[in-house]
Amino acid sequence: MSNINFQILAKNNKARLGSILFKKYNKIVDTPVFMPVGTYGCVKTILPNELESIGTQIILSNTFHLWLRPGIDIVNKHNGLHNFMKWDKPILTDSGGFQVFSLNNANKISEEGVSFSSPIDGRKLFLTPEKSMQIQYYLDSNIVMVFDECTPYKKNNKIISIDDARRSMNLSMRWAQRSKLEFNRIENKNNIFGIVQGGMYESLREESIEKLINIGFDGYAIGGLSVGEPKDDMKRLLEFIPDKLPSNLPRYLMGVGTPEDIIYAISNGIDMFDCVMPTRNARNGLLFTSYGNLKIRNSRYRDDLKPIDDSCQCYTCKIFTRSYLHHLQKTNEIVGSRLNTIHNLFFYINMMKEIRASIKNNKFTEWSKNFITKRSIGIQ
Amino acid sequence: MSNINFQILAKNNKARLGSILFKKYNKIVDTPVFMPVGTYGCVKTILPNELESIGTQIILSNTFHLWLRPGIDIVNKHNGLHNFMKWDKPILTDSGGFQVFSLNNANKISEEGVSFSSPIDGRKLFLTPEKSMQIQYYLDSNIVMVFDECTPYKKNNKIISIDDARRSMNLSMRWAQRSKLEFNRIENKNNIFGIVQGGMYESLREESIEKLINIGFDGYAIGGLSVGEPKDDMKRLLEFIPDKLPSNLPRYLMGVGTPEDIIYAISNGIDMFDCVMPTRNARNGLLFTSYGNLKIRNSRYRDDLKPIDDSCQCYTCKIFTRSYLHHLQKTNEIVGSRLNTIHNLFFYINMMKEIRASIKNNKFTEWSKNFITKRSIGIQ
Repeated sequence: MSNINFQILAKNNKARLGSILFKKYNKIVDTPVFMPVGTYGCVKTILPNELESIGTQIILSNTFHLWLRPGIDIVNKHNGLHNFMKWDKPILTDSGGFQVFSLNNANKISEEGVSFSSPIDGRKLFLTPEKSMQIQYYLDSNIVMVFDECTPYKKNNKIISIDDARRSMNLSMRWAQRSKLEFNRIENKNNIFGIVQGGMYESLREESIEKLINIGFDGYAIGGLSVGEPKDDMKRLLEFIPDKLPSNLPRYLMGVGTPEDIIYAISNGIDMFDCVMPTRNARNGLLFTSYGNLKIRNSRYRDDLKPIDDSCQCYTCKIFTRSYLHHLQKTNEIVGSRLNTIHNLFFYINMMKEIRASIKNNKFTEWSKNFITKRSIGIQ
Repeated sequence: MSNINFQILAKNNKARLGSILFKKYNKIVDTPVFMPVGTYGCVKTILPNELESIGTQIILSNTFHLWLRPGIDIVNKHNGLHNFMKWDKPILTDSGGFQVFSLNNANKISEEGVSFSSPIDGRKLFLTPEKSMQIQYYLDSNIVMVFDECTPYKKNNKIISIDDARRSMNLSMRWAQRSKLEFNRIENKNNIFGIVQGGMYESLREESIEKLINIGFDGYAIGGLSVGEPKDDMKRLLEFIPDKLPSNLPRYLMGVGTPEDIIYAISNGIDMFDCVMPTRNARNGLLFTSYGNLKIRNSRYRDDLKPIDDSCQCYTCKIFTRSYLHHLQKTNEIVGSRLNTIHNLFFYINMMKEIRASIKNNKFTEWSKNFITKRSIGIQ
């Protein structure tokens, strides 16, 4: 019995307008949705009330990071992540798998799980599907992700072979089964999503989907994309995978991406996204605008009295000049990172809002074309 | 004809309750007042609307820093600093003197002014009283400070002799005269404050005051304190100087200080203060509370669910736990610096509010005793 209630309200070709009702909290998330990333229980530079006023409906937080700092005992003492960080809307947490496999120090992978040294203090740690489920339970995450191995695009500088990708996918599927069993055993009343793996191989992706559907999940994510593969490979798989997924459940493309990539994925039936791009780029002074991307450090903005984007309704654009933001970036003022983050997140969240309206009005294709054409004009 | 209108509304012994009306903008500042420091046209980590909601009535910004970055042409293009940073309440600017004399690279001081190399790009620069007045004019600062030499406490590891202190004070007084002449010549409609110098010597301080009064200013500041001297020297001069200043004009103690120092100065008749302490300490995790200072990085706060200060009404204390703030500090999250800054500034500004109320009710001495006793209890 799923605790999620997903409704599809309209379709434009493959693009879906939907809503997810989180019964436990009685909160609704409109899809397609973008989830800002709050790694350490905090979306970098901004506060929950600002996230809300930007229109954020759900955020992603990182199990691995929170497990290490502050530690699950601390979050549990606050009765979960929502109350720790004071965010009362839904939270999705990843499983920690991606981070564990990204660590530079040698990790020992076994059937049981992954052992590794903490990047904070070097102590030996061991992460398993069961452990990941327990951590996400204490975080009180509203969407728990299964523990998996994110199959890389290359290994030892060579593209992963189909045999290696199959081995990796099969391990992930056994871990998905164990994740689901543990999720049920500990009586988690939230939701759990499976993650499709299989590298760049359609046949493996199809096998992975079958196995996940047999286990049964509240939603399905696509992992192992945007991991360094050529854009054409990503597009090929985005055209292939979503059609094979249950049509009545949410589909989540992990870690993607640029506005253009997101639009492409939505046109292929994806409902949910997360990416550090708007927040990380903001801190580096790269701003998304309807006319393309703008590097605020560039000296051409030194005396520019225009807002970042004259068609943008965000707090930053309503109040401050490019010249002031250029100055804050050059002087490394934290307020600059804040104002840039507000703008970039607003850009992403507002884009999703426009996309939802366009699907509702049966104009998604037209909207996408206009949006992408305008984005290629360049900054005035 | 002064553009300032200072009224004394009540007195408790030497402590004064007052208000400054800025006629040009029709803005009122209640005294005693604390001015947060916004060096680069931005109070570090927080936005103008947050400054306002904390109760800030006036801020200080740094002429020297703004001259170098973004440059006066840029601020002028925005019609002044208020519109550049979007702060519509009064701004006081220092003269740049303090910064020029603090530079490590060799500065050549002459009667005319100070030549030095830019710490940003090494280019040769020359700052004079006239130049400082012109910069502060373009910043549209509501209180312009005269260009002076801040006499240090020690030179070559020896306490400054009375002869050296006199030479320095006399140079500052000639520069004060030139500052006033230039301020008038360029028809600045704002206000200009003189700065009392004279090191640790009462006789020189008295000479300095006489010279400044002969020139005539809209208010008088005390410079050259809190420059490394023993606390007893500062107290001795704080007991001596204010009585010699015109009683009908605002008195400003530059760069001071701890809550306890501020209270001591108010009890001797000072009206205005600025200090980087609340903002800089916040970023380092040192928090001011009514029970003493709290280092949020300390592991004792790891699992502490209490607010920073249970008697504090600031945004941070109303919402977040010490445990969460400890976590943000340990993970170097910018949001931690923000929340700490909001708390510390609120503490300072609220303290001034309580002081004003206590003077009004003829209870300043009693209030001070209670406040200082409570601050010595230590954190629970």
